[in-house]
Amino acid sequence: MKKSDVVHVLFRSGLDKMPPRETGEAFAPTNIALCKYWGKRDAELNLPMTSSLSISLDQKGATTKLSLLHDKPHDVITLNGKEVALDKPFAKRITAYLDLFRPQKNWHLQVDTTLTIPVSAGLASSASGFASLALALNDLFDWNCSKRNLSILARLGSGSATRSLWHGFVEWNAGVQPDGMDSYGEPLTVEWPEFCIGILMVSDREKKVSSREAMQRTMDSSMLYGNWPKKVATDLVILKQSLKVRNFSLLGGVAESNALAMHATMLSSWPPICYFLPETVQAMHKVWEVRGKGLELYFTQDAGPNLKLMFLEKDIGKVKVHFPLMEVIKPFVLSS
Amino acid sequence: MKKSDVVHVLFRSGLDKMPPRETGEAFAPTNIALCKYWGKRDAELNLPMTSSLSISLDQKGATTKLSLLHDKPHDVITLNGKEVALDKPFAKRITAYLDLFRPQKNWHLQVDTTLTIPVSAGLASSASGFASLALALNDLFDWNCSKRNLSILARLGSGSATRSLWHGFVEWNAGVQPDGMDSYGEPLTVEWPEFCIGILMVSDREKKVSSREAMQRTMDSSMLYGNWPKKVATDLVILKQSLKVRNFSLLGGVAESNALAMHATMLSSWPPICYFLPETVQAMHKVWEVRGKGLELYFTQDAGPNLKLMFLEKDIGKVKVHFPLMEVIKPFVLSS
Repeated sequence: MKKSDVVHVLFRSGLDKMPPRETGEAFAPTNIALCKYWGKRDAELNLPMTSSLSISLDQKGATTKLSLLHDKPHDVITLNGKEVALDKPFAKRITAYLDLFRPQKNWHLQVDTTLTIPVSAGLASSASGFASLALALNDLFDWNCSKRNLSILARLGSGSATRSLWHGFVEWNAGVQPDGMDSYGEPLTVEWPEFCIGILMVSDREKKVSSREAMQRTMDSSMLYGNWPKKVATDLVILKQSLKVRNFSLLGGVAESNALAMHATMLSSWPPICYFLPETVQAMHKVWEVRGKGLELYFTQDAGPNLKLMFLEKDIGKVKVHFPLMEVIKPFVLSS
Repeated sequence: MKKSDVVHVLFRSGLDKMPPRETGEAFAPTNIALCKYWGKRDAELNLPMTSSLSISLDQKGATTKLSLLHDKPHDVITLNGKEVALDKPFAKRITAYLDLFRPQKNWHLQVDTTLTIPVSAGLASSASGFASLALALNDLFDWNCSKRNLSILARLGSGSATRSLWHGFVEWNAGVQPDGMDSYGEPLTVEWPEFCIGILMVSDREKKVSSREAMQRTMDSSMLYGNWPKKVATDLVILKQSLKVRNFSLLGGVAESNALAMHATMLSSWPPICYFLPETVQAMHKVWEVRGKGLELYFTQDAGPNLKLMFLEKDIGKVKVHFPLMEVIKPFVLSS
């Protein structure tokens, strides 16, 4: 099944209607998975092998502004104010996504995306990017789509974008249907104001292997990947239970273990994929050292070298002693 | 089954005979596994979950000298010339091993072990240590044991010692019998004079988690470990084929992948086990970088932070440009 088929299922008709306004705009937060999405059951539709669970990072994310272009034979894409050449992979992904929704073939948009996070450094820039793009299209065209359907549309751009439609904890149900109509995000009703994330930037260089490629290579070549779905199924049950009873140690431990197991599947791929930099490993050992001394501090890591620390608000001061450069995010405390 | 039962099966009777001489002495090389031994099917007898394959490191290893003590109520243990207190784990392992063979209860030995490698830094010091101890006992008592049986005896001291009875490439057959009589080393008939190992010392500190403990924790807690035996079975077939046809790229790639998969099972254990230090990861990235430029260079890593590089003799100069501090071992070229 193709992406355009899914779009036609969702809209039935009406995709040829011109937008009622000149611009559309939306923000979507980036999200950090506590139980990772790693491996696809359908690469075209970004349907995952397993369910996953994330926390959205408040105001860290992407704002996308769309403007109709009346006199250009092509789209114009900007990222953080700089125009991106249309033959770059980043621009190609966006124009291909827009192709799904153009009312006429020779109809073009200016897409201005502004990120409050670094690009391609394992901070889910594409998650917030495609979620904000789907929301901005909904705004521009006045689709009045449900968030569930927007989550499905965002997924067609980037898998983890499925979870970036909401703040707080979000679960992405893998689903079983071939068209992925049962594969969307759902917010959990858990508020946890004391829950903090500390972004520990180790490097903001663009990664050499994209998560897309890394995921595919893992599925193709890692023998240890075979047990990953079992690991996720177990971790998800415990994570949801830990959220229900607000057991932070349980949550932190399972999230850290889940992240390490994901990286383990990558290390055992061929050629090996290693998002660890020396500084990453140094920070990990530091976390283990201070946790050994009683501080409730855990980490998670995505397809990039940076760590995201997890701790409770009461420990911010203690954590900052060891990681003075981290940036603290409180996902449940509205930023001004 | 207990260790002493195995010893009695091997000797039937005659263990009460006094040695015909005052001293016994032997050297055994350390060995580096290209396909790792990771996980036991019997922790008491050090019977492995899987077969494994190693290369012995020529003159790097342990020499053990045994001397009868006529006037001491206990054993005396020295390591590299320094006496080791009998309540230290190292001494306890050796005296417990000697208990298996004492002709009389109140009969004691001086055990002097000299290592040409650092202790407990992932260079298989216990492998060469117990192999040389088994050989030295054979010398002292004049057992005239076959190497196969000495391999079984060495295993009772340390699993990887099973492979340290020979030079060159050695396969350790996992076996299936509960008493482990089919679990011993066998030398492969492959000579490969161009094959080089480069020892890259990153740290010679003693490791915090012993391989024994790490192995147990992996089996107890890593969900990814479930597919490790499948990985080993595949890797062993390819490794032996690569030795047969002298395909170095194949050998290097499989050995590196096998090592990374072993560390992957550890990372996915809880609490996580990480033998990577920042310097380890730096060296790995360096290997991948120069291999990307065409140099046939691979690594393996054991339960410690140090890397063992693999390359052919013709490339020594090129490898030394990138790793000037490595020590080169030529396992098939007799050292003077």
